Amino acid sequence: MKYSAKQIATLLHGTVEGDENIRVDDISKIEEGKPGTLSFLANEKYTNYLYDTSASIVLVRKDFELQKPVKTTLIRVEDPYHAFAEIIKIYQQHIHNKKGKEKPHYFDKTASAGKNLYLGAFAYVGENVKIGDNCKIYPHAYIGDNVTLGDNVTIYAGVKIYHGSRIGNNCIVHAGAVIGSDGFGFAPDKDGNYKKIEQIGIVHIKDNVEIGANTTIDRATIGKTLIESGVKLDNLIQVAHNVVIGKNTVMAAQTGVSGTSKVGSNCMFGGQVGISGHVDIGDNVHIAAQSGVPGNIKSGEKVMGTPAVNANQFKRNYVLQKQLPSLRSEIQELKREIARLKSE
Amino acid sequence: MKYSAKQIATLLHGTVEGDENIRVDDISKIEEGKPGTLSFLANEKYTNYLYDTSASIVLVRKDFELQKPVKTTLIRVEDPYHAFAEIIKIYQQHIHNKKGKEKPHYFDKTASAGKNLYLGAFAYVGENVKIGDNCKIYPHAYIGDNVTLGDNVTIYAGVKIYHGSRIGNNCIVHAGAVIGSDGFGFAPDKDGNYKKIEQIGIVHIKDNVEIGANTTIDRATIGKTLIESGVKLDNLIQVAHNVVIGKNTVMAAQTGVSGTSKVGSNCMFGGQVGISGHVDIGDNVHIAAQSGVPGNIKSGEKVMGTPAVNANQFKRNYVLQKQLPSLRSEIQELKREIARLKSE
Amino acid sequence: MKYSAKQIATLLHGTVEGDENIRVDDISKIEEGKPGTLSFLANEKYTNYLYDTSASIVLVRKDFELQKPVKTTLIRVEDPYHAFAEIIKIYQQHIHNKKGKEKPHYFDKTASAGKNLYLGAFAYVGENVKIGDNCKIYPHAYIGDNVTLGDNVTIYAGVKIYHGSRIGNNCIVHAGAVIGSDGFGFAPDKDGNYKKIEQIGIVHIKDNVEIGANTTIDRATIGKTLIESGVKLDNLIQVAHNVVIGKNTVMAAQTGVSGTSKVGSNCMFGGQVGISGHVDIGDNVHIAAQSGVPGNIKSGEKVMGTPAVNANQFKRNYVLQKQLPSLRSEIQELKREIARLKSE
Repeated sequence: MKYSAKQIATLLHGTVEGDENIRVDDISKIEEGKPGTLSFLANEKYTNYLYDTSASIVLVRKDFELQKPVKTTLIRVEDPYHAFAEIIKIYQQHIHNKKGKEKPHYFDKTASAGKNLYLGAFAYVGENVKIGDNCKIYPHAYIGDNVTLGDNVTIYAGVKIYHGSRIGNNCIVHAGAVIGSDGFGFAPDKDGNYKKIEQIGIVHIKDNVEIGANTTIDRATIGKTLIESGVKLDNLIQVAHNVVIGKNTVMAAQTGVSGTSKVGSNCMFGGQVGISGHVDIGDNVHIAAQSGVPGNIKSGEKVMGTPAVNANQFKRNYVLQKQLPSLRSEIQELKREIARLKSE
Repeated sequence: MKYSAKQIATLLHGTVEGDENIRVDDISKIEEGKPGTLSFLANEKYTNYLYDTSASIVLVRKDFELQKPVKTTLIRVEDPYHAFAEIIKIYQQHIHNKKGKEKPHYFDKTASAGKNLYLGAFAYVGENVKIGDNCKIYPHAYIGDNVTLGDNVTIYAGVKIYHGSRIGNNCIVHAGAVIGSDGFGFAPDKDGNYKKIEQIGIVHIKDNVEIGANTTIDRATIGKTLIESGVKLDNLIQVAHNVVIGKNTVMAAQTGVSGTSKVGSNCMFGGQVGISGHVDIGDNVHIAAQSGVPGNIKSGEKVMGTPAVNANQFKRNYVLQKQLPSLRSEIQELKREIARLKSE
Repeated sequence: MKYSAKQIATLLHGTVEGDENIRVDDISKIEEGKPGTLSFLANEKYTNYLYDTSASIVLVRKDFELQKPVKTTLIRVEDPYHAFAEIIKIYQQHIHNKKGKEKPHYFDKTASAGKNLYLGAFAYVGENVKIGDNCKIYPHAYIGDNVTLGDNVTIYAGVKIYHGSRIGNNCIVHAGAVIGSDGFGFAPDKDGNYKKIEQIGIVHIKDNVEIGANTTIDRATIGKTLIESGVKLDNLIQVAHNVVIGKNTVMAAQTGVSGTSKVGSNCMFGGQVGISGHVDIGDNVHIAAQSGVPGNIKSGEKVMGTPAVNANQFKRNYVLQKQLPSLRSEIQELKREIARLKSE
């Protein structure tokens, strides 16, 4: 999809200086500009790049004064940074402006959807599924029986949502994520064989949640695994059965939360964090990457390490670790001193 | 799918007290009861909730005496807890009672399946695949050429099984799991470029195995990657080429087992455990979450930490770590004492 | 797919001794030989197995002298090991020799592909996609709009490639991998709600790259996430937005690289390694499994631990850790000595 300088200037209420027919299909930073891209000059520090850039079009301030000729085409606008952001927004809307129903798809006759549905080819929508307005369901998405999706939900390619899951408004679920798979529950019999404990609860995801690629969220044994509104989960995260994650908590990639643990609101977890089962993490808790959390953490705490401790304590311990060689030397020295004292 | 009080009473040989036409499509705990749900009262401690519950139907003992009127509809049964479990079982069978072949699907003419196959829309079954009786293959599942599935196998949506894999009876594979992808094997040439070592073995999964969502099990370089019967793997686990996992071993989410390692039977691994390549883990070994295992572990051991050591030793070490500040203080004190002794 | 002894002998320019019509469809080691398999005898140490093996066909040296009769069929060749490798190569080419377009598939009218395309059933190829020669796109693969694939690329089942991603020649992407999902970028507003930062960059993967099952590579916020040629990524790896991974670097399973970090060429990462954001890892760096890397690492370093330190230093620290009990005893002993000295 290529846009001409003229088209862009029209969108931005700007004026073209140069070739109004030159076309771009990508964007670039002015210092890395390439032919076929659009860039912008907002910060005066970068002015020098304007004269050498290979970007095809550059947005500049309305009243910007050229010191010498440029090869690029200029579009003069009120506020280049703001205009650039506007163009990106339009571009994104265009990219994500999929519409209609591609064929073949599977849409059960008992399912329903609101207006402006995009249904990709090979998407599957099961029995009694209810889909709100303005939803996008990409190819190979699987929406199991009795699932509900709110308005403005985007389900990317190959997402699998098991039966009965509920997803709120304005949620985004990235490719390959699995929602509602069985919780990991087994009871050993007397011979050491494990018998499956049926997992009959659901996953409930509230509004404005974004879920990363290949992340997995298990259904509850009974009741619900609950993701509160505004939560952001990165890729390859594991959320076990009956977990609750509070409002606006964000977790980086490859973190795992074990069964029945409760995480408060506005927490920030680094990547590869592990939370044990049945623990209670307060609000506004920060957990450093790769930490292992075996027990409860109070609201407002910052922790790190395995087992995770207060971040300041962790750093003190770490300094002490590093002093071990000198502690050992000091002990040797003390021994020699005492030997000398005794021999006196 | 809604059930009326009358239908449920008939299934349970119970008697309705209240509105026999009221309908439910979910279950709830009596203390969290909501309209449209079925609950039960088995433990007398919860009796008070009966009078306030919003659950539409509650199962109670045949001879239960009401102290005051209730809003909910009662079904009187011999044993409410047992009856509830029975209803859950029936409900689960109903949920998972998918039958027939949805369209479109791809079923190669050289493939075969036993009786009662459920084949979801967009499922793919390749050349010479052999499928046993009572199998369920959900939408977007990919069953590569020459794969065999035993009886009563459930393959959830979007599972990918590469060519030649063998899966036993009564196995469950959750959405997004990948079975039989190439092992990670490369040989550097003299220029530092890596040449792929062909991975021509298979994955062999025996009976009663459950595999979690987005878990990956690589095929062997030669021979087989072997998952013995009764093994339970949680979500996002990595099992590398030529690994053997013994009978009834269970592993929590995000654990990884490196190439050619052998894990015994009846082991329990916490989440995010890492096992090095070419190591031998005995039977009945317990490994705590996030442990890193660089070498062999004897049968019956309980280990934790990175590198993993005996759990008791780990705890002793941990206590010593915490004593480092006081050890340092003691050394300072000793120095002062000696200085005093010397000056005397 | 079964091959007769006669067919194999013809391929290998060998001679059959025994039943030329016996057929095999698998391979085995001579000491584990089973009916229906082909094996070989190259190392004299294994000669005894020849007389007992159940393998249907065994490749032996042209001039090999039998000491007693064998049950198996022999094929005499110049070099049995080399011949076996040759057969495996042919077998692999056969397994992976998918051709043509299975139906149904979705191939947008604006997309194009070179010669010898294999397009599996339910594969999706979006707008303006450009596919080179000799590519294989397995069932349920999703190739988003404006993606380009070079020549000889294999995309396994269920891979999801978001719009605009670029993949070079001779790449292999394993099942369930996700390429080009949004980077994890959010800005908090004054109420603590997170607003999505649009991710408008791409993923660019160069030549000869292999990507493991269920691995995720996020698109750049702006610009590109770059995987240089020859990189090999194992399963379940996370590569965040704007990361650069240098030529011929290999990473084992479940490793994660955080946003905007730069990894040099010819590095080797163990499994479950975590790299913080915005760090710079040099060339030829070795990072041990489960290490956590919070900062830059110079070229040629070997590191381990969390936080990762030079491997030799890590080992010294570890020895000191183990000496803690004896250090504590020594301190106690010193105290007693001093008490004695004082009381003298």
